[in-house]
Amino acid sequence: MVLLRQELGELLRETRRDQGRTLREVSAAANVSLGYLSELERGTKEASSELLQSVSLALGLQLSELLVDLTERVARAEAMTQPVPLPVAGVTRVAAARRSAA
Amino acid sequence: MVLLRQELGELLRETRRDQGRTLREVSAAANVSLGYLSELERGTKEASSELLQSVSLALGLQLSELLVDLTERVARAEAMTQPVPLPVAGVTRVAAARRSAA
Repeated sequence: MVLLRQELGELLRETRRDQGRTLREVSAAANVSLGYLSELERGTKEASSELLQSVSLALGLQLSELLVDLTERVARAEAMTQPVPLPVAGVTRVAAARRSAA
Repeated sequence: MVLLRQELGELLRETRRDQGRTLREVSAAANVSLGYLSELERGTKEASSELLQSVSLALGLQLSELLVDLTERVARAEAMTQPVPLPVAGVTRVAAARRSAA
């Protein structure tokens, strides 16, 4: 199962690191505690709407811009957790019949 | 300020109503309490990642599909809360000068 807070946490961390900023800098800019931001980034805490907005703006992103990136990330994670299709039974049986006939 | 849980709540309610389904039906399908779903729809409660996933699937949507709709809605709400630009001072002064010259 794809966990939204996990995907959000990884996105926040990547965005912050891409900007070469520390947890301390971004938490100060967002006016949230360093511990809270750290928990968000590790995906161990659900973000409240107000604090997510603050963190997003502190990273220079409108909430909708953060959501665009989050949606892409969740879609990728969903694609990776899709069940892999097994070989079609009929095809396998034909191949087996060919092998035993050879 | 755009509140994510408010936008999410309205989206969940609209999606459910578009499908002609009751709170009771969707809460049962999602295996969440009716009260919880009702609070989500009213935007008074933050959704946990697990329960948001359940509600989304109960509405026949992958989480990423719900997020696409949510992103659009948040972007619209942001556009509506942008400050309206005031008339450019120079243009106003020129117009006033023309009025007094006429």
